[in-house]
Amino acid sequence: MTLLDGKAVAAAVLEDVGAEVRALPGRPPSVVFIRVGDDPASVSYVNTKQKTAARLGIDSRLDHFPEDISGEKLLAHIASLNADAAVDAILVQAPLPDHLSERTVFNAVHPDKDVDGFGEVNLGRLVQENPDGFVACTPAGIHEIIRRSEIPVEGRHVVVVGRSLIVGKPAGLLFLRKGDFANATVTFCHSRTRNLAAVTRQADILIAAIGRAHFIGPDHVREGATVIDVGINRVDDPSRPRGYCLVGDVLFDEVKSKCEYITPVPGGVGPMTVAMLMANTLKAHRRNHSA
Amino acid sequence: MTLLDGKAVAAAVLEDVGAEVRALPGRPPSVVFIRVGDDPASVSYVNTKQKTAARLGIDSRLDHFPEDISGEKLLAHIASLNADAAVDAILVQAPLPDHLSERTVFNAVHPDKDVDGFGEVNLGRLVQENPDGFVACTPAGIHEIIRRSEIPVEGRHVVVVGRSLIVGKPAGLLFLRKGDFANATVTFCHSRTRNLAAVTRQADILIAAIGRAHFIGPDHVREGATVIDVGINRVDDPSRPRGYCLVGDVLFDEVKSKCEYITPVPGGVGPMTVAMLMANTLKAHRRNHSA
Repeated sequence: MTLLDGKAVAAAVLEDVGAEVRALPGRPPSVVFIRVGDDPASVSYVNTKQKTAARLGIDSRLDHFPEDISGEKLLAHIASLNADAAVDAILVQAPLPDHLSERTVFNAVHPDKDVDGFGEVNLGRLVQENPDGFVACTPAGIHEIIRRSEIPVEGRHVVVVGRSLIVGKPAGLLFLRKGDFANATVTFCHSRTRNLAAVTRQADILIAAIGRAHFIGPDHVREGATVIDVGINRVDDPSRPRGYCLVGDVLFDEVKSKCEYITPVPGGVGPMTVAMLMANTLKAHRRNHSA
Repeated sequence: MTLLDGKAVAAAVLEDVGAEVRALPGRPPSVVFIRVGDDPASVSYVNTKQKTAARLGIDSRLDHFPEDISGEKLLAHIASLNADAAVDAILVQAPLPDHLSERTVFNAVHPDKDVDGFGEVNLGRLVQENPDGFVACTPAGIHEIIRRSEIPVEGRHVVVVGRSLIVGKPAGLLFLRKGDFANATVTFCHSRTRNLAAVTRQADILIAAIGRAHFIGPDHVREGATVIDVGINRVDDPSRPRGYCLVGDVLFDEVKSKCEYITPVPGGVGPMTVAMLMANTLKAHRRNHSA
């Protein structure tokens, strides 16, 4: 069993991005984060992203709105950022409060600034295999950790558990594409899948993106598989100062011995997500600069 | 074994669409076909579509361009149709000559007139499960024949062979959605898939969209499966007046006895494609009218 060290791979990605940023002529890349309300996880994610950006020489700003902002007002703000040539990238931190349509908000971000890749145009570009599109950061991070670890994908069976817009669907579509570290047979499973373990046991590469703590156990995994654990679930843990700990969708301790490669939680996919956001922001800057 | 009679189901769809068209106030729905060059199959497809439109009271027009039209000129023509309020729907008949980028041309059609659903916005809407989008006519036809035949999909395993933009990918995404006649486990296979038959034998619903005559044989199909044959392949046949006959991707005669349901070629998916184009044109008209 080899641990896929997301921290180390993310550091390598960030080093590459940082070197490219330093070599850029003119102003640095810039990203604006939009946060609505004060969801603690969102606060923490945006903080981490802003700190990483600062370390790389990427300008960032947080536009924070109260929980009860109207859809109209939020969309008007996004439109003003779309029109602002000094803004390369826009990221609306999910989840949004219930009265706002995430789809409408994501689609309002200009496709060339949509570094989260959740808008309809970038999702369509992924289906079209158009390399000009932005791929959502978590799926892009999964692909990058596989690519940098040189895990074979062509002709292999990738099984994705979870069909979310943010992880499951784009992750499967990435591995289905033609090209290097792609050309996989891809299966999407989810809550309605019958006999899940029989399907997941076929996976050469199993991507667990369900959002349920310890859902994937040893029965779901075949000997020699690569397991990518996307879950970040809070589980009560009175022994921790915060009263909880973070665990993945995979029963790591019981599954790891069967795996050829496995990502830990934390320290697996999480850091890759942040790294790919920086890579996407650099890409957005290059595009806006060349346009 | 029950034959899925695409002609009969398409006739039912067309009857519904025709009744709705007749009940519309104001001008009838209108679709413009763009054909570049004189590919005989394209000529025949566009003819069939125009005849069907006429029968339903849908206005249609063919804009025909020479094989060597420049991309600029074609895109300018599409822009003029996008801006023309009297045009509800635009369909650029594929394939295009090699010097034209199909992706660029498909993406140039306004999303609200893109009744073929090949543009990036409508593909993204499919990934987002946004019912406002247009779904490509062949995948939509496959879904409709399954729906009208009341073949159970939820929790079943749909295996799609072929990952094209036009059939394979959107077909799989349709059955992966939440909702009725969806919520399937979905697997995409293709030319790089290892041990294809072992994968396709898991299918409750097998969609063959490879474009290779008689590629799917009895070894690929499990007892009791539903088989949807999307292939329309020319095979030499000196006994026919034209010198060829049309066959599917499935070895129909050897596979049918294993199936619970199977579509024939011709008379299966083909008529459904045309019917769904009419349904999409009506939908485009409603949208343009209400806007």
